[in-house]
Amino acid sequence: MKQAALNYHREAKPGKLSVEITKPADTQQDLSLAYSPGVAEPVKEIMADSQLAYDYTIKGNLVAVVTNGTATLGLGNTGALASKPVMEGKALLFKRFANIDSFDIEIDETDVDKFVEIVTKIAPTFGGINLEDIAAPACFEIEQKLIEALDIPVFHDDQHGTAIICVAALLNALQIQNKALADAKIVCVGAGAAGIAILNLLLESGAQHDNILLLDSKGVVHSGRDDLNVYKQAFAVETDKRTLTDAMQAADVFLGLSVANLLTAEMLLSMAARPVVLAMANPDPEVLPEAALAIRDDIIIGTGRSDYPNQVNNVLGFPYIFRAALDCRAKEINSEMKLACVEALRNLAKEPVSQQVLDAYGLRELSFGKDYILPKPTDSRLLQQLPPAIIQAAKASGVAREVLGTTTERFYSAESE
Amino acid sequence: MKQAALNYHREAKPGKLSVEITKPADTQQDLSLAYSPGVAEPVKEIMADSQLAYDYTIKGNLVAVVTNGTATLGLGNTGALASKPVMEGKALLFKRFANIDSFDIEIDETDVDKFVEIVTKIAPTFGGINLEDIAAPACFEIEQKLIEALDIPVFHDDQHGTAIICVAALLNALQIQNKALADAKIVCVGAGAAGIAILNLLLESGAQHDNILLLDSKGVVHSGRDDLNVYKQAFAVETDKRTLTDAMQAADVFLGLSVANLLTAEMLLSMAARPVVLAMANPDPEVLPEAALAIRDDIIIGTGRSDYPNQVNNVLGFPYIFRAALDCRAKEINSEMKLACVEALRNLAKEPVSQQVLDAYGLRELSFGKDYILPKPTDSRLLQQLPPAIIQAAKASGVAREVLGTTTERFYSAESE
Repeated sequence: MKQAALNYHREAKPGKLSVEITKPADTQQDLSLAYSPGVAEPVKEIMADSQLAYDYTIKGNLVAVVTNGTATLGLGNTGALASKPVMEGKALLFKRFANIDSFDIEIDETDVDKFVEIVTKIAPTFGGINLEDIAAPACFEIEQKLIEALDIPVFHDDQHGTAIICVAALLNALQIQNKALADAKIVCVGAGAAGIAILNLLLESGAQHDNILLLDSKGVVHSGRDDLNVYKQAFAVETDKRTLTDAMQAADVFLGLSVANLLTAEMLLSMAARPVVLAMANPDPEVLPEAALAIRDDIIIGTGRSDYPNQVNNVLGFPYIFRAALDCRAKEINSEMKLACVEALRNLAKEPVSQQVLDAYGLRELSFGKDYILPKPTDSRLLQQLPPAIIQAAKASGVAREVLGTTTERFYSAESE
Repeated sequence: MKQAALNYHREAKPGKLSVEITKPADTQQDLSLAYSPGVAEPVKEIMADSQLAYDYTIKGNLVAVVTNGTATLGLGNTGALASKPVMEGKALLFKRFANIDSFDIEIDETDVDKFVEIVTKIAPTFGGINLEDIAAPACFEIEQKLIEALDIPVFHDDQHGTAIICVAALLNALQIQNKALADAKIVCVGAGAAGIAILNLLLESGAQHDNILLLDSKGVVHSGRDDLNVYKQAFAVETDKRTLTDAMQAADVFLGLSVANLLTAEMLLSMAARPVVLAMANPDPEVLPEAALAIRDDIIIGTGRSDYPNQVNNVLGFPYIFRAALDCRAKEINSEMKLACVEALRNLAKEPVSQQVLDAYGLRELSFGKDYILPKPTDSRLLQQLPPAIIQAAKASGVAREVLGTTTERFYSAESE
């Protein structure tokens, strides 16, 4: 894998992206329209009405992938420059799945306010900002301040993208296990960007605060601890449970955002009947599916891995959320839009699997059930079904500026179906 | 023109650029190399050696077009957002002429130090920074501070690009007129970014300080004035000349960076024998070629316009200067490189015109002389001849980090010839 990945990035031309010209640029006449003197005309139009930037530039289909490299993949603080392959990869996924033009900006700044100021000042360039791989808790404050400062959508995918896919997976799994979210006892290991966001979205979806046990590197987050940031404090409960072993007893749900091989057979056996385990540590989950299923067969298990069923993968969400946000010029990406994405993902998993998907995975059949709780990432119906549902929620909740039938046609219906 | 330019920018898809994927991204296997988990490998390599960012990302072929919109084209301070069509156009020219991937960053900041800090902090993303359409005198300070702060080339094209093309044109024109630069009396109208940079490069090329008269909006810049910034002060001379009419008497050279129709018949007639007039105001020059030549036929005249001979156009320079700087990983773009570009441009204009150029312009013949002092912008030999000459100067002057034969082959020899 190592050599293949290095070759992939280096061969032919370094990196994974290029910038290309979309208009005629051969003749002197072409260039006089693209640049001086013709280009003065759209400049004057935009000076008169700033919204016309969406008609005359790529702003309306352009998302920045912005990071400071403080939490790159599972590698920790790599610094801005070294995170660039990941950010170019994210931009590649935006293009591949939702035909969104995207480029990466690596910012060598870890101070929250300075980082916010830099992103705010460069924001005129873009139609949306995807924050990526910024360490918690700074990421929470950065996102909130940018949402307040900017009139374009800002979305920290490590928080909300992960939360949306995880909640969709969990709700479908609980349905199959015949359990209600409101009654489910939930254990979440990992109190960083993703863990906190998942729990917040679960609360919005009907989970009960007192049914949730959050664990960080020091164990259970409980009301007797004095070392908690405000984001963890929100999930501190009165309990005498201290360890993961304590927490797992009678739990219905395990959410793992931690490290490989964390879960023991004892822990799995102590869970309630028909449990759901989403073991999302990358690249190696808290427990491997075959190991978990050997211990008890009433479990539904999902991981971050593409070589097992039930892959909990952010690529099921962010391309379509930004596709929707751009196409309705949403001022922000609100809870209604996130929950609409959850529902659309859940619904698609319940539809008959398309032949395209079966062929891609070399499968003869697949249907909603313990081994299929989420759509497959390469299912082309994601682009058909998710953005309209999310746009509908944006309109209903009042954050859609304008619903652009023609842009939608241009950018995803026409080109990508 | 207006409607054609607006249609050009809006039709099919807004704007002029797209971001495209250069590597396979179809299968799950492809994506596991492009993104998690494979992408961790180049990240780790770059953490160990930052120069490997040039091997595993597009940094080495990526130039940012950076502005704050304070001097957009001839439109003045348009603000950051409204300048975006121009900046996308500049990125288009980088791609079209030198196969450089380029995208634009519009920064909503006019304070010099804050602007410098923002560009410094986002610089890890890029292999070079092209500053564009930033008003003087802030542009001088911004460029100097960025050159000091960064280890990648920073180049304000409105200054140095214009200066390089103008000096090449002037030197060839003086040669045809059988005059020496050291003896030439030079009048320059316009003391902004371009005017100051042209005069500085002329001094480096052998022009005599006391032969130069600079004029700003208040007339001749002379040593009795107390309203001059330091950049103008450098060209203040002791003289009793105050107006353009005064200055033009017996001048050998007129350099115009001002407004349309500035030059009168009287002024032109008062110039020395065999004068050179570079009337570069856009879109309409200080005097039209047919008008000037009707007044006196011993003149050589160039303008910014593509519909007359002798177009003084920055596109003859910046694509090839950055192509060279990227291909030898130059730490900066120094005077030696600029002067090498001047020489290479001068030399190419003296070579027989290629059939490709004659066909593109519908000409039967064209040769070095009063109507052909600079190569044509679409001459493909520019990409063959300019970068090697500039790289040679970078090596000789010690700013080339590494001369990348293979990158050169990839990016310009192989793909673009």
